[in-house]
Amino acid sequence: MSRLNSSAPISEPSLPLADQCSQSAFYAAKKTFQNREGKWGAAAPTPDHYYCQLLKTPTHTLAISSDGIGTKIEVAERCGNYTTLGFDLTAMIADDLICSGAEPTHLSNILDVDSLDSSIVDVLLRGLQKAADEAGMMVTGGEIAELGTRIGGYGPRMHFNWCATGLGILPNDTKPIDGSSIQEGDVVIALRSCGLRSNGFSLARKILDARYGDAWHREPFDAESTWGEKLLTPCLIYAPYILQLLKNKHSIKGIAHITGGGIPGNLERILAPWHKGAVLDNLHAPHPEQLKLQEWGDVSHTQAYLTWNMGNGMLFVLAPEAVERVLRELQNTKLQAKRAGIVSGDRSISILSPESDAVLHFPYEE
Amino acid sequence: MSRLNSSAPISEPSLPLADQCSQSAFYAAKKTFQNREGKWGAAAPTPDHYYCQLLKTPTHTLAISSDGIGTKIEVAERCGNYTTLGFDLTAMIADDLICSGAEPTHLSNILDVDSLDSSIVDVLLRGLQKAADEAGMMVTGGEIAELGTRIGGYGPRMHFNWCATGLGILPNDTKPIDGSSIQEGDVVIALRSCGLRSNGFSLARKILDARYGDAWHREPFDAESTWGEKLLTPCLIYAPYILQLLKNKHSIKGIAHITGGGIPGNLERILAPWHKGAVLDNLHAPHPEQLKLQEWGDVSHTQAYLTWNMGNGMLFVLAPEAVERVLRELQNTKLQAKRAGIVSGDRSISILSPESDAVLHFPYEE
Repeated sequence: MSRLNSSAPISEPSLPLADQCSQSAFYAAKKTFQNREGKWGAAAPTPDHYYCQLLKTPTHTLAISSDGIGTKIEVAERCGNYTTLGFDLTAMIADDLICSGAEPTHLSNILDVDSLDSSIVDVLLRGLQKAADEAGMMVTGGEIAELGTRIGGYGPRMHFNWCATGLGILPNDTKPIDGSSIQEGDVVIALRSCGLRSNGFSLARKILDARYGDAWHREPFDAESTWGEKLLTPCLIYAPYILQLLKNKHSIKGIAHITGGGIPGNLERILAPWHKGAVLDNLHAPHPEQLKLQEWGDVSHTQAYLTWNMGNGMLFVLAPEAVERVLRELQNTKLQAKRAGIVSGDRSISILSPESDAVLHFPYEE
Repeated sequence: MSRLNSSAPISEPSLPLADQCSQSAFYAAKKTFQNREGKWGAAAPTPDHYYCQLLKTPTHTLAISSDGIGTKIEVAERCGNYTTLGFDLTAMIADDLICSGAEPTHLSNILDVDSLDSSIVDVLLRGLQKAADEAGMMVTGGEIAELGTRIGGYGPRMHFNWCATGLGILPNDTKPIDGSSIQEGDVVIALRSCGLRSNGFSLARKILDARYGDAWHREPFDAESTWGEKLLTPCLIYAPYILQLLKNKHSIKGIAHITGGGIPGNLERILAPWHKGAVLDNLHAPHPEQLKLQEWGDVSHTQAYLTWNMGNGMLFVLAPEAVERVLRELQNTKLQAKRAGIVSGDRSISILSPESDAVLHFPYEE
C-alpha cells in the first residue's frame, strides 16, 4: 500500500495523527481492490506497510509506488541550486520499488509551482533525466501545474513541490521480496548513505534556524561547504546496484529503504509482518551533520534514529551463508556495505548507537 | 507525453511560458525513452501533446498519465465540503486515459498538506474510493506528505494539493485511439459537462473576487446554491461510458478530454498531428456560471473557449455512419451527447459560439 499505510511517512512531530491518516487512506484504498479482482492488475499479495503495491499481470508482477522529496526543496531554494533534486526524486521512487525486488522501469512526475520560472524548470527536469538514466528508468511525462499561493517556499524565485509515481516489474517466475523467508539468525547488511537523503528535513531546518537564524544555509559546515550545500547532497540511488545483485542470483530476503521513520520505522516494515526483530550492533556511523543537528537540537538518540537515516540509507537481509559473496561483489561498486546486525525473534529492533554506546530499544506497537 | 507537452496544461495568463516549460520537460523526458528500448514498457507510438504515454508490454498496451485538480481545492476549502474532490481527481485521470481507448485500471494519489487534519483526510479519501468504484479503478495507495508552509490555501483548516498518476490498459490486439484514422467529414460528438470540471479556476476565482470580494463563495448563484456550491459541482466521469461504447464495438477515431486549453486547445491535440481541423457549429451551450463569469470578467469569447469547457467536457470523433447508433446507445445513460460539428481539412478549429452567433477561429500555430 506504499506510503499511505506506513507507520511513519510523515514528519516527526505528529506521528499518531499521521498514523491515523495513513490508516484511513489505507482502508479507503483497500476497498477499491475489488474493482480489479480477477482482472489485469489485480492486487498481488503485498505486506501491509510496504514500500509499493504489487499487481498481477499475465507476464509480470507490477510494482507501483508514489513519493515526493518533501521540504528538501527549501534547501535547493536557499542555495539556488536545482541540479540535484531529480536524483532525490528518482531515489525516493526507485529505492522504494527495489524493496520488492522489482526492476524500476517508469516514472511519471508532477511539479506543482506557484508561478513558472522556465530556467528552474529546465534545470530540474534535466536533473531528473540524468537521474532516470542512472536508474535505467523512463520518464513517461507528467504534469506541471501552476497553483499560485497554494505553493510556498523560501526566497523570491519560483517555489514548488515535486512528486512522482514509479512503476517496476518482476517476471512472474520470480517471487517478490517481501521478508517472508527471513529467519532468526539472518544477517542485516547496511548500505552507507551520503547524507540525509530526502527525509528529516523539517526537524533539521528547525534546528539550524534556531542556531543560526534565517540565513543558516550560508553558515560554514566545514572548510569545503556551507550547511546548505551539505544538506543538499543528492541521494545515491541504490536500486541499480541491488538489481545487479539480484540479476547475479544473490538471494535477498528483505530490503528496507530508510526513509521517514528512520531505521526502526522502516526495518519494522519488512520484519514485523513475519514476527521478527533485529539487533543492530554494527551500523555505519551517523554523519557529522546528523550528530551536530542532534546535539544542537537536543534530540534524543531515539528520536534521531526515528527521524534521520543516521548514516544508513538502505538495509537488507541475507542468509548467513550469502553474506561474504555479496559483500565481495559490492566492493567493486560505489556502495559501502557492511554486516550491521542479526535478525532476532523479538518484536523489537535494538540499535547499539555507534556514537554513544547506548542501546536503543524500539519495541513494535501491539 | 501526458500534460508535460500539452499546448495548454497550465493556467491561462502565462501560456507562452507554460509552453516553454512543457517543451523542456518533454525533451528531457523523451531522452529517457531509450532506457526502456527493447524492454518491457518500451515507448509505444504516441502522438506528441497527447493525454497519456503509451507503453508496450507483452500482452497489453499500457497507458500512464498524471494530473491534479488544481485550484478547485480552494472552492472546497471555502465551502468546507471535501466529499466530491475525489470525483474530480478520478475524472482528471480516468478521462485522460480513456482518450487513448485504454481502460483506466489503477490510480496512485499524492496528497500534499500543510498540517494534517484527519477528518478532512478521511473525507477526501472516502470520496476518492467512491469515485474509483464508479470508474472501476483500484487505488493502489500513494503518499501523504506534511509540507508545512510549502502548502497554502484558504481559511484556517488544513490546506492541500492533490494529484495522481493513473494506469490504463488495452489488449495488444486492439489499436490505441490516437486520431490517426480521422478523415475530413467525420463527425464530432460533444458530451455535456456539468460545470467547470477541474480547469479554469484561477480565472474564475479572480473574477468572483473582483465582483464580490473575498467571501464570494457565499454569494447566491441562484435560488438553489451559492457560487461556492456551484463551482464545486463534481466532475461526471466519462470513462466508464466511453469504455462501454468501445466494448460494444463502436469505433471511436479520436477522443479529446476538454481540460486546460479548452475546446480548441484539446481538440487540436487529436486533430493537428493528422493535419485535420474542425468546424463546430452545434456545441452544447455554455453553463450559466460560465456566461456570468465571462460577462463580469470581460472575458472575450476566444479567451473563454481557451479557458473553460463552455458546456462540453469531452469531444469524440466518429465516422458519419457510426453516429446514429452511438447517440442512440448513449440515450440510456447519464450522458447528454450531441452531434457538434464536422472534421475539416483546415489547420484550425472554428466554433460557432452558441451564445453570441459569433464565429471564433482558432488557427494552429505553425
